[in-house]
Amino acid sequence: MRTAGDFSLNDLPGAGRIDIACRCVTSSLLLSHGVRRNVSLYIHMLGEPDPPKTLLFKGDEIKYLSPDERSAGSLIKKALSMKVSRGWINSTPGVMVSRICMDELLDELSARGQLFLLREDGEDIRNIEFKGEVSFVLGDHMGLTNSQEELVRTKGAKAISVGPLSLHADQCIVIVLNEIDRTSENKFC
Amino acid sequence: MRTAGDFSLNDLPGAGRIDIACRCVTSSLLLSHGVRRNVSLYIHMLGEPDPPKTLLFKGDEIKYLSPDERSAGSLIKKALSMKVSRGWINSTPGVMVSRICMDELLDELSARGQLFLLREDGEDIRNIEFKGEVSFVLGDHMGLTNSQEELVRTKGAKAISVGPLSLHADQCIVIVLNEIDRTSENKFC
Repeated sequence: MRTAGDFSLNDLPGAGRIDIACRCVTSSLLLSHGVRRNVSLYIHMLGEPDPPKTLLFKGDEIKYLSPDERSAGSLIKKALSMKVSRGWINSTPGVMVSRICMDELLDELSARGQLFLLREDGEDIRNIEFKGEVSFVLGDHMGLTNSQEELVRTKGAKAISVGPLSLHADQCIVIVLNEIDRTSENKFC
Repeated sequence: MRTAGDFSLNDLPGAGRIDIACRCVTSSLLLSHGVRRNVSLYIHMLGEPDPPKTLLFKGDEIKYLSPDERSAGSLIKKALSMKVSRGWINSTPGVMVSRICMDELLDELSARGQLFLLREDGEDIRNIEFKGEVSFVLGDHMGLTNSQEELVRTKGAKAISVGPLSLHADQCIVIVLNEIDRTSENKFC
């Protein structure tokens, strides 16, 4: 995905598939007439011209997010136009951006609680017992590279699957969250 | 939702929430790098200026559908620009439009097999045994009116729920399809 805010909101797929990120924002954070305040979404972007950039969307602080793709696209465009450093820079309310590398990001997430990697050949999510804060790693339409996947696994991630068919990232997020919704009170990241 | 094709693809929410229909098309028909060939989606539209119109998206014939919202919006715009009659008129491949009323549409669907109504207080979808061809009725952001819901129930629909929280229509579709994917070979409508 493109790591600059110079794309057109009228052509989100043309911006290195920013449309995928948009749908992940919506499926992660929005309920019908409500927001998932206990969910955060990290989008780790490695595309040109200025990688890596990670966007953080926090459900407990997010504002100006409507369900349509263009609304999320607008927040992403703004965040990708910010000057970035290693720390987290505020863009719009509930949206931050950082230069953090994948290794460090995974360390942060695994330190907080359970870490899972979504893979079609993983264990059925319905057999997993979720405890405390949980994080899920999933790729875009290209999937993770072998070395990225290896890195995620070295951080202790367990491979899980949401079902028998290969789905879009945002569809996987919907199913993961539905599974979490069905368990006892969990924090979700 | 607006029942004319005179809206701008740059403002799908402004077109009487056509964005909701767009996301339902994508979540119903698209897999990662594939199409759900055994799924059809009916969008029954009652908005101004020319109600009722029903759009039919057929997974086994659909073409020119990409995962982004604007792509589905473009197909919907084209279909809503067609001259409509009581029968089904072809718009683009796999997309049809008709003047069919809700009563008649529900009769068609219930004649084909099991009919379900999505409601937050319905029985858990995981307890349902799906057999043969199945159809699911769900509302947009406004939900069904009481009389519409009553009509669906008189056609034999059983109320089911996808989980404990109130979700967007497209998110419900993702969960329903995941449930169907997990059962034995079913046709889905």
